[in-house]
Amino acid sequence: MNSRPIAVFDSGLGGLTVVRALRQHLPHESIVYFGDTARVPYGTKSSPTILQFAEQDCRFLMRFGPKMVIVACNTASALALDELTQKFDLPLLGVVKPGASEAVRQAHGQSIAILATEATVASQAYPRAIHELAPRTPVTQQRCPSLVPLIEEGRSSDDPIMLMLLNEYLDGIRQLDPAVVLLGCTHYPLVAEAIARLMPQANVVDSADATARWAKQMLAQMEILSLSTDPGRLRCYVSDNPQRFREIGGRFLGQAIRDVTWITPEQFFTDDSSPPANPSPASFAPAARVA
Amino acid sequence: MNSRPIAVFDSGLGGLTVVRALRQHLPHESIVYFGDTARVPYGTKSSPTILQFAEQDCRFLMRFGPKMVIVACNTASALALDELTQKFDLPLLGVVKPGASEAVRQAHGQSIAILATEATVASQAYPRAIHELAPRTPVTQQRCPSLVPLIEEGRSSDDPIMLMLLNEYLDGIRQLDPAVVLLGCTHYPLVAEAIARLMPQANVVDSADATARWAKQMLAQMEILSLSTDPGRLRCYVSDNPQRFREIGGRFLGQAIRDVTWITPEQFFTDDSSPPANPSPASFAPAARVA
Repeated sequence: MNSRPIAVFDSGLGGLTVVRALRQHLPHESIVYFGDTARVPYGTKSSPTILQFAEQDCRFLMRFGPKMVIVACNTASALALDELTQKFDLPLLGVVKPGASEAVRQAHGQSIAILATEATVASQAYPRAIHELAPRTPVTQQRCPSLVPLIEEGRSSDDPIMLMLLNEYLDGIRQLDPAVVLLGCTHYPLVAEAIARLMPQANVVDSADATARWAKQMLAQMEILSLSTDPGRLRCYVSDNPQRFREIGGRFLGQAIRDVTWITPEQFFTDDSSPPANPSPASFAPAARVA
Repeated sequence: MNSRPIAVFDSGLGGLTVVRALRQHLPHESIVYFGDTARVPYGTKSSPTILQFAEQDCRFLMRFGPKMVIVACNTASALALDELTQKFDLPLLGVVKPGASEAVRQAHGQSIAILATEATVASQAYPRAIHELAPRTPVTQQRCPSLVPLIEEGRSSDDPIMLMLLNEYLDGIRQLDPAVVLLGCTHYPLVAEAIARLMPQANVVDSADATARWAKQMLAQMEILSLSTDPGRLRCYVSDNPQRFREIGGRFLGQAIRDVTWITPEQFFTDDSSPPANPSPASFAPAARVA
C-alpha cells in the first residue's frame, strides 16, 4: 500500500499549486495528476455538472490504484467531496477544510474574507467549514470570475490590469476589514503578492500548503507513507492536448512539467480499469512491503 | 422542408449574437439553438477536442431535422467546418467566410486586423479566407483570451478594466493601421463600441450580420425559406444548468430568453434520434408544403 501513488485531480492546471506543496511536504510520494483541460473551467458551471465531472475524474484515477485521492480543485471540493466520499472506498481529501482550518488558525477570532469562483461562493462551503471550527467568526465572500483567465494569460502581481481587477474585487471585502484573506481557488496563489500588497493589514492564506500537511498527517496515521528514499515520481494526465498545460503549468508547479499524457475521451470514458496510454505499471504496483 | 428549423450551435452563449441577426433578417424562421455550456469555452482548447465537440453538437441538432446548420462559434467554424461538411448531409454555414467577406468588402484593398480566440488565431482560418478573396490584403491577428470572461462578467464598453485590456490587445494590431477590425469571436460585438472608440480610423466588422445575410441567400437559392407569416420560434438547449445562460444570454440576444431546456449528458450522448426533453415535435415536423 505504501508505494501506491497519491492521486490528485483538478479542473485544469490550478491543482498543480497543490502538487507543488505535496512534493515539498512528501518528497518520496509518487503522484498521479489528472487535469480536465477539455472541460475546464468548473467554477462557472452548475452543481450537478461539477458533481458528474468530479466523479468521472475520480473514477479515471482509480485505475492507478491510489492510496488516497486529493481533490485539488476548490470548486470540486466545495461541491462534490461529500458525494465522492460516499461513492469511493478510499481516503479522500479536499482543499476546503484544510484551507478553512488554516484561515481560522491565523485569524485568531477575527474576520475572514474568501476569494473564490462563482460556484464555490454559491456553495457556501467555505463559510460552513469556517463556522464549524469557529462559529462566531465574521465571514464574507467575493467571487472573482475573471481572475483565472487573466492568470492563465500570464499576468502576474505586477500587471496593471491584474492590479486594477484585484482592487475592484477586494472592494467587495474591504468593509469587513478582514484579518485573513483566504484564496479559495488554486490559481490565486500566483497573484498572492498583489493581494497582500492591496490588503496590507490581512494575512493571505492559501489551501495548498495546509492541504499537503493534512495529507501527510493522514498518510502517517494510516501508516501508509511511502517507505522509499528516492524522489517520488509525478505523472500528469490531461483531457485536452497537453501543449498548453505544459506551457502554462510550469508556473503553477514551480518547475518544468515533463511527464504529461493526453487522455482521449475514448480512454477516459472506457470501463477498462487498467492504467491508460503508456503507463509504467510497475511504478504503481503495490509494493511487497504492505503496511 | 420550408418549415423545418434552422439549427445553430455555439460553445456557449456567444452564438446568440448570430441568432439575433438571424431573427432580424429571417423573422419567420424557427431556430433551434444549442449552447455547449458544460464544456465552454472552446477557444482555449486544441483542434482535435474542438473537432469532436463540434461534431457531437451537430449530431445532437440533427434530431430536430433542420434544413440547415449554422456554426455560430468562430472557433468551431475555423477548425471544424470542413470536417462537419464532409460528415453531415445538409447545408452548413460557418461565421468565418461571411465575416471575412464583409471585412474584404469594407477594407477596399486596405489592411484587415482580426481579433479572436487563441484557437481561431492559431488555425489561420481568417487570413486564409481573406486571402482567397483578396490575395494581397495585409492581414494581422491578435488573440484576446481574457475578453470573453470579462464580457460574461457583465463588463461593457464603458468599463475601465475592459478599456485597459482592449487598449493593450489593440496595441498588437496598431502598427498595421488597419482599415477594418474584424471581430472574430461572437462575444466581441458586445464591446464593439469601445473598440471603435479606441480605433477611430478603422471600420469595426462582426460576422453576425453577414452570416445572417448569407443564410438568407442560401435558403432562398435552395427555395426552402419559411413560407409562414408568423414570427419564427426560438428554442434553446444547453448542456449545463440554464440559469446562467438565461441571466447572461439576454444581453447577447437583445431580448429575454424564454425557452431554454437543459440537456443532460445522458440525453446528449444517447443514440436516440428523437428530439429530447419536452419538445413539441409538431413545430419541427416537415410541413405539408414541401418545396
